[in-house]
Amino acid sequence: MDRTVSRRGLLLGGAAAGAGAVGGALAHRWAAGAPTAPQEAAALPLNGERTVPFHGPRQAGVETPPQAHAAFTAFDLGRDVDAEGVRRLMRLLSDDAARLTRGEPALADTEPELAAVPAGLTVTFGFGPGLVERVDPDAVPGWLRPLPEFDHDDLDPRWGQADLLVQVCADDPVTVAHAVRMLGKDARAFTEPRWTQSGFRRAHGSEADGTTMRNLMGQVDGTVNPRPGTADFDHLVWREAGPPWLAGGTGLVLRRIETHLDTWDELDRPAREAVIGRRLADGAPLTGGGEHAEVDLAATDATGLSVIADFAHVRRSRTDDPEERIFRRGYNYDLRDHGTPEAGLLFASYQADPVRQFVPIQRRLDELDLLNEWVTAVGSAVFAVPPGCAEGGYVGDTLLEG
Amino acid sequence: MDRTVSRRGLLLGGAAAGAGAVGGALAHRWAAGAPTAPQEAAALPLNGERTVPFHGPRQAGVETPPQAHAAFTAFDLGRDVDAEGVRRLMRLLSDDAARLTRGEPALADTEPELAAVPAGLTVTFGFGPGLVERVDPDAVPGWLRPLPEFDHDDLDPRWGQADLLVQVCADDPVTVAHAVRMLGKDARAFTEPRWTQSGFRRAHGSEADGTTMRNLMGQVDGTVNPRPGTADFDHLVWREAGPPWLAGGTGLVLRRIETHLDTWDELDRPAREAVIGRRLADGAPLTGGGEHAEVDLAATDATGLSVIADFAHVRRSRTDDPEERIFRRGYNYDLRDHGTPEAGLLFASYQADPVRQFVPIQRRLDELDLLNEWVTAVGSAVFAVPPGCAEGGYVGDTLLEG
Repeated sequence: MDRTVSRRGLLLGGAAAGAGAVGGALAHRWAAGAPTAPQEAAALPLNGERTVPFHGPRQAGVETPPQAHAAFTAFDLGRDVDAEGVRRLMRLLSDDAARLTRGEPALADTEPELAAVPAGLTVTFGFGPGLVERVDPDAVPGWLRPLPEFDHDDLDPRWGQADLLVQVCADDPVTVAHAVRMLGKDARAFTEPRWTQSGFRRAHGSEADGTTMRNLMGQVDGTVNPRPGTADFDHLVWREAGPPWLAGGTGLVLRRIETHLDTWDELDRPAREAVIGRRLADGAPLTGGGEHAEVDLAATDATGLSVIADFAHVRRSRTDDPEERIFRRGYNYDLRDHGTPEAGLLFASYQADPVRQFVPIQRRLDELDLLNEWVTAVGSAVFAVPPGCAEGGYVGDTLLEG
Repeated sequence: MDRTVSRRGLLLGGAAAGAGAVGGALAHRWAAGAPTAPQEAAALPLNGERTVPFHGPRQAGVETPPQAHAAFTAFDLGRDVDAEGVRRLMRLLSDDAARLTRGEPALADTEPELAAVPAGLTVTFGFGPGLVERVDPDAVPGWLRPLPEFDHDDLDPRWGQADLLVQVCADDPVTVAHAVRMLGKDARAFTEPRWTQSGFRRAHGSEADGTTMRNLMGQVDGTVNPRPGTADFDHLVWREAGPPWLAGGTGLVLRRIETHLDTWDELDRPAREAVIGRRLADGAPLTGGGEHAEVDLAATDATGLSVIADFAHVRRSRTDDPEERIFRRGYNYDLRDHGTPEAGLLFASYQADPVRQFVPIQRRLDELDLLNEWVTAVGSAVFAVPPGCAEGGYVGDTLLEG
């Protein structure tokens, strides 16, 4: 797990840890219409001050509890950028990330004051096949290539494979905007921007910690995720085998899954629940129990029909092969400011080997999953997420100094 | 001031009000990697549960402390919609707003579970001249018309005047997305959607309560705002004179101000500070004091030059006429997902009379304000914000039942 530290919490010697709640205190002050006394405000640890360390054996932003906001930005390397260029680029971006995640301005930060609220900021880098080839064609792992085509995909190259991914997550949208801008400016001399995909979840403080997210279709989404910090998670997510430079890294599949909310609206609740195989109210399987209960795929109803239909998403996504599992850390998107509304899920999954772990699941869903009627993948890309770096190092140094 | 209530706080008899802070408690749990015990989570009042009453003599969302996220959506009435149609529309939307702001599903809510986190949701309605004319041509206040043209504007009709504005604000982006979708669906039978403008500020819990916002240029933005709850605020913002249906209402000017961050980047800090007349670090006037100190427009430096230049934004926006003041409640925008990045400020100002209060300020800025080099208004619209409604009533009933 990431160590998560409140700077003010440290200053206070952690004394605030067991105490009450900022939400109630603020609500009280607003209710009374009383101004905020500076000393009172200073006594409240702020989520905006929370930092997640950038340095460490693994990159942050994977097992870090998902922050409220994410921006995935992708770049293609300039034609003339060689291994030395990639080295300079990754040194620069790692330095920016280390500073910004501490709540400090980037070097030559044009708006240093906007850097003062880290709000749990993480910056996570992923390498596309193009970048690894540029450095060392023999270092590209076998799975680092475009996913096979799926029948129900309708991929737009606009959201396609790129050389470098920068995933920026924080609980504050201003923090994300500032970090994206600073990192983008420093990448400019080496790259062409390819795309940005912005997403969101519930705000920090909106729901009890550990609540499984809901997507914009209203479904509880991500119930079967392996739990960070367990041996199961480590085995599924963090790479042990393969090219040595990737030991302690992982693989990221990022798919842009558009949701057809207008036709989804035509379904009533029982139909929506049958499509998934879970109850909308709490995400529990239609065969009973709580959200985390095992799905009983053999259960039948009074008429002898399967409770979980053949076409149900939950049946199609399951497997008896314990290796065919992934860790999902997705974000909703909802773009309305440029005309036609466009909404869906930035499906981000981490797994040690996307071909071995993700592809079989997606094949079963592609073959027969009624949900395909209402969702379409319009973007797809795969990235190798290198291990983290030590202070003084940079992400990718295991590849570039190898 | 709005009364701001935490449902869980009420259940707890307000006992949590004086207590510590959720940020520290959560950080502690994450640091320890411990799972969240349900009873522990239940004891924490959540900001997501906070509600702001929809009903009351004034609409919420004006003097309500600005939430983190806003979506301004605009609609034009269908050609055949008469006063009775407007009445039905506003009854429907007011009912949706009353329910959603309580954290309850809208009637026929297709994703009722997404309504469970109000997170301080407010829904504020504004009427364009077209809507008021449709009901009663004699009821249009003189100021409810497009602003005069300003030389530095480059208005795109895409962000122009519309018949109905729905301003949705909450601390949670999922809450905003859900409310916008539900309200938009219920408006569909009566209107054509015109535009959506989405914006953000610092997240709840990112900064001490009452901190003046910064825009994406890094400037402290909104220092001279009148303070909600004061007689000065009431006089400047809430209408006393004019058509009786607007008593207790206000006027909204919404301008989309694009920021040219690439050329702004070419300025060093002293130049940026001279353009505004305030220090970037804390928003204090260049003539000294703290953020809220009076600007000394007469001060000169050692060479005899004005410390606050003739072209400085702070000089141009000031006046000796105490009536020429407005209340700003703006939001940043930063759109990157559709190609060319586009960033700026959704300038939202409330004033009893935009022509008397806003226009003279903007004229002075238009004539001579160096900031015009880096910002351009690309959208502009004016709306009459009716008073609030009682339970059983609806926003606009003072016009429609008059």
